[in-house]
Amino acid sequence: MQPSGVVTLLTDFGTRDPFVGVMKGVVLGRFPGARLVDLTHEIEPQRVADAAFWLGQAYRYFPAGTVHVAVVDPGVGSTRRALVVRADGQLFVGPDNGLFEVVRRRAPASEARQIELTALGLPEPSRTFHGRDVFAPVAALLASGALEFDAAGPLVEPLPSTLVPAPVLGAGSASGEVIISDRFGNLITNLEWAWPEGATPRVQVLGRPLPLASTYAEIPVGSLAALFGSFGQLEIAERDGSAARTLGAQRGAAVRVDW
Amino acid sequence: MQPSGVVTLLTDFGTRDPFVGVMKGVVLGRFPGARLVDLTHEIEPQRVADAAFWLGQAYRYFPAGTVHVAVVDPGVGSTRRALVVRADGQLFVGPDNGLFEVVRRRAPASEARQIELTALGLPEPSRTFHGRDVFAPVAALLASGALEFDAAGPLVEPLPSTLVPAPVLGAGSASGEVIISDRFGNLITNLEWAWPEGATPRVQVLGRPLPLASTYAEIPVGSLAALFGSFGQLEIAERDGSAARTLGAQRGAAVRVDW
Amino acid sequence: MQPSGVVTLLTDFGTRDPFVGVMKGVVLGRFPGARLVDLTHEIEPQRVADAAFWLGQAYRYFPAGTVHVAVVDPGVGSTRRALVVRADGQLFVGPDNGLFEVVRRRAPASEARQIELTALGLPEPSRTFHGRDVFAPVAALLASGALEFDAAGPLVEPLPSTLVPAPVLGAGSASGEVIISDRFGNLITNLEWAWPEGATPRVQVLGRPLPLASTYAEIPVGSLAALFGSFGQLEIAERDGSAARTLGAQRGAAVRVDW
Repeated sequence: MQPSGVVTLLTDFGTRDPFVGVMKGVVLGRFPGARLVDLTHEIEPQRVADAAFWLGQAYRYFPAGTVHVAVVDPGVGSTRRALVVRADGQLFVGPDNGLFEVVRRRAPASEARQIELTALGLPEPSRTFHGRDVFAPVAALLASGALEFDAAGPLVEPLPSTLVPAPVLGAGSASGEVIISDRFGNLITNLEWAWPEGATPRVQVLGRPLPLASTYAEIPVGSLAALFGSFGQLEIAERDGSAARTLGAQRGAAVRVDW
Repeated sequence: MQPSGVVTLLTDFGTRDPFVGVMKGVVLGRFPGARLVDLTHEIEPQRVADAAFWLGQAYRYFPAGTVHVAVVDPGVGSTRRALVVRADGQLFVGPDNGLFEVVRRRAPASEARQIELTALGLPEPSRTFHGRDVFAPVAALLASGALEFDAAGPLVEPLPSTLVPAPVLGAGSASGEVIISDRFGNLITNLEWAWPEGATPRVQVLGRPLPLASTYAEIPVGSLAALFGSFGQLEIAERDGSAARTLGAQRGAAVRVDW
Repeated sequence: MQPSGVVTLLTDFGTRDPFVGVMKGVVLGRFPGARLVDLTHEIEPQRVADAAFWLGQAYRYFPAGTVHVAVVDPGVGSTRRALVVRADGQLFVGPDNGLFEVVRRRAPASEARQIELTALGLPEPSRTFHGRDVFAPVAALLASGALEFDAAGPLVEPLPSTLVPAPVLGAGSASGEVIISDRFGNLITNLEWAWPEGATPRVQVLGRPLPLASTYAEIPVGSLAALFGSFGQLEIAERDGSAARTLGAQRGAAVRVDW
């Protein structure tokens, strides 16, 4: 795989403290040509599912050969493994805790290797900051081309996880749930297009029927509607408002489509 | 115009979700040498006026040939046009909704072209994320030199807008208003220097007289004063405090100078 | 000193307004090859001590020849000096107000020079935004190699400051305090390892004894413990919680270790 030189970072470290900046310093020390892109650092502390969801949406818009570093890691310091995953022509570096679940579901031919620091000539890490001491240096080696995926460690099977639930598809219906809300208060679900062309879907959220729109602009101001969001999932939106607040809906809220 | 290779981004997308990172992935996919700079992504959702104000201040500090992408777009999915504006030797990409109002006021010789995706060989965009599907790829083409401004589409006149009001200048007075407050609680107005050299201006905010200072350090701790901010506007500041909170003043609060 | 081309920024400007973006525009205008890294911009307004603490931790992870710009500057516009500090093979640019205190404590052979703008051919700065008008252009000149440290101005002694207190070390005890809390609510102290190998340290925070752990994963969920953080300081952490909230502890809270 030809590296693109792009390294993305996705963490729950926030931006108040310089943890992310320090990771970038480590990457640039080993690979001065890295082009660093933040996906987000505001994953709620230790919400691995949210990180897995967003990583599975975002990576598809990056050039082949990009290295994505993801660190949401409640088990740092425990014996959980450190992984490099190759999927869809891109590389993913982070802990083996389900972070790559959505990426791997999208790319069934993905492979994972367990990072072995000493074999890679890297020093013993701190107990508490593997983003800096494990994942950033490995990402730099991969992104610079100094380390090939095949040499990153032995092939392993990532631990099974179902952090981001799949919808239940029936003959004339699909049942899913709200996965996450975005900055605008749109509720993003795990439902994608599942009905026959020409069918008339009826959407319900928490038992409440909602019309189906095709753009935000089409929704009357202050009204709620369902529409397909820009990454392909059914979303619940309120025009010039927050559907999350209006519906009081959270992660896990039931969403159903009948057709 | 020789591109500088710098691409800035200004949105209301926030940094909780990876929307901005995805736009950067799209830019880097088409122009690997892009140097990406965030202006801000924390414009209040859909406050086009705030974005227009800050864009009009910030661009002046970037090298000639910089491409600025601005996406605050309540009408995404509607029929509003997508524009490239050339002004002061720089390029601006975004929706035709007043975002470039302040830039264009500063650069009367500006020109605007309507982006025609199919003519540029770009795919049909999603209905809800033109930042990713329209503005980021066009910015990459412009910033890399692959697309010249003159080839971006037909010349058009941007829709008239007055999102950021101009002050009213009299013989011995100027009446304006608070446009925005900054992170420190300073209230930035639309008044710039308007009185004769040597005149003694008297400043009032919401009818309350304030002394005129020339630096923050000169203001007694806990006191309020007016001073000229770093972008040239009259600001109301409280030393080691928040003028916005102390005065309870918001956007639109009346400010008057007599001399 | 061979520049690395990396320029970091650490400020209290926040990311709501485009102040940091404007500084980056200035750097890129003078040094198009700069690789810009944000340390943080969310230092509490004017908390120079917090900035000094984090800068002293973060810089050690950047390549030799990196230029760090730090701007937390309650005295902007006053007569405080502008400095370039050389320490540990890196350069630091900012006001002479204690920002470099922790860096200089770590690097006793550091040297400081006073920036003289006119000697460097730079224009008169604004009164209120030295980050843009003084520190960014000087950083660009240093990072590009156009300006050598030795030519940056006369050698000076930075003003003495003790913003970040040192612990008090006894024969069988060390007394320190909480310096700062991080995004996860961990309380970071000024105590580093001070007892003989093999000793059994007993940690107290606000008089309350706490067990010593070696990783977060080792702490029972919901419990508090002390451990050495990734930058070497003793921290107080709550597993899957916020020690800062649970203890109600703030900066300055007493921490004591006996052995």
